[in-house]
Amino acid sequence: MDVALFTLLPEEGLAIVLGTRDRDPFAGRPALFGGFLRPGSDGSATDAAHRLLAEKAGLADVFVEQLMTFSGPDRDPRGWSVSIAYYALVPFGRLAEARPGLAVWPVGRMPPLAFDHDRIAAAALARLGGKASYSTLPAFLLPKTFTLPELKAVYEAVLGTALNDSAFRRKVMEMRILEEVPEKRGATAGVRRPAQLWRLAADRLVEFDRTV
Amino acid sequence: MDVALFTLLPEEGLAIVLGTRDRDPFAGRPALFGGFLRPGSDGSATDAAHRLLAEKAGLADVFVEQLMTFSGPDRDPRGWSVSIAYYALVPFGRLAEARPGLAVWPVGRMPPLAFDHDRIAAAALARLGGKASYSTLPAFLLPKTFTLPELKAVYEAVLGTALNDSAFRRKVMEMRILEEVPEKRGATAGVRRPAQLWRLAADRLVEFDRTV
Repeated sequence: MDVALFTLLPEEGLAIVLGTRDRDPFAGRPALFGGFLRPGSDGSATDAAHRLLAEKAGLADVFVEQLMTFSGPDRDPRGWSVSIAYYALVPFGRLAEARPGLAVWPVGRMPPLAFDHDRIAAAALARLGGKASYSTLPAFLLPKTFTLPELKAVYEAVLGTALNDSAFRRKVMEMRILEEVPEKRGATAGVRRPAQLWRLAADRLVEFDRTV
Repeated sequence: MDVALFTLLPEEGLAIVLGTRDRDPFAGRPALFGGFLRPGSDGSATDAAHRLLAEKAGLADVFVEQLMTFSGPDRDPRGWSVSIAYYALVPFGRLAEARPGLAVWPVGRMPPLAFDHDRIAAAALARLGGKASYSTLPAFLLPKTFTLPELKAVYEAVLGTALNDSAFRRKVMEMRILEEVPEKRGATAGVRRPAQLWRLAADRLVEFDRTV
């Protein structure tokens, strides 16, 4: 099992959160959060991904989704191996709860990782970019409530392209993926134009219809 | 490992090709093509999927792609288990090469399957439908050469919706996924308007860009 954890840096955009291998092979090398599945005590591989993030990153209740399973003779110098890989998304503010010592790297400047973790991280990034175009996935990088410009910025970070303001707002409203939050940001601080806050209408990932 | 194999029936559209469980649990029940990964002799899980299709369905060189990995205490009555699931696509004509005794069911009338294979088959169908909207995936249900109306029909079968003729043709031409085949179908038989044949420009699956 390996979990690629991503966050959104306030300035530098999409970033990967890494641990450090504490033993050979690859001792001292940055790595995804990995460990063995425990059949019996883990309810499923998804439960195991949550357990690994809790144990190795100190983070509970993080969004996780299965990426794919990697296998073969070359991914671990100790021999033929299989790893069910997951990706996970955490809002930047929640990294304050994480275990100390984690490294956060903008995805464009990732260091070389242990095992085949570069390949897993690249596959996870491709999946994020693809799925951003037809789902609420990027919103799981934001706090529970956010402004529309913040939502647009996280879609832009994950898609890697600039989006048109009004087309984005129209699409989001058509999709009915958001609901208004009663409080506005800045409303109590006497700001002249407090910003409307939104949250996802559903707790779970929502995928949109796609057309040919 | 479990492989969900699909084909396209000339009249009834998208169909699943099933084997039969030859021992308990679920002896006699229709099932996906399953078996154990052989670390060491299988180069990867994908190689194992090809091996299982060759051994259990008698089919070599079939399009396969990883679906996802299923795990947990409830999927096999013998206890906690993991299965890396794949889907595979085979043109109907090639079923003549397959092992005798396979059952072909239109996907809307699938019988109850062994283990959690109903769930795996449903996930594979959802993936096929999703991926059809941004890739050449459905074309792997056709013979190597095909007419544009045949290509449109297979997209319609996988997407489950009717498509507009000229919009489909325009999109396919814009995407540059096809190349003309020198021979026309019916050209030698003295048919008045022989049909232009096409083939995929690339041997591999091609995914298109998606936009928000």
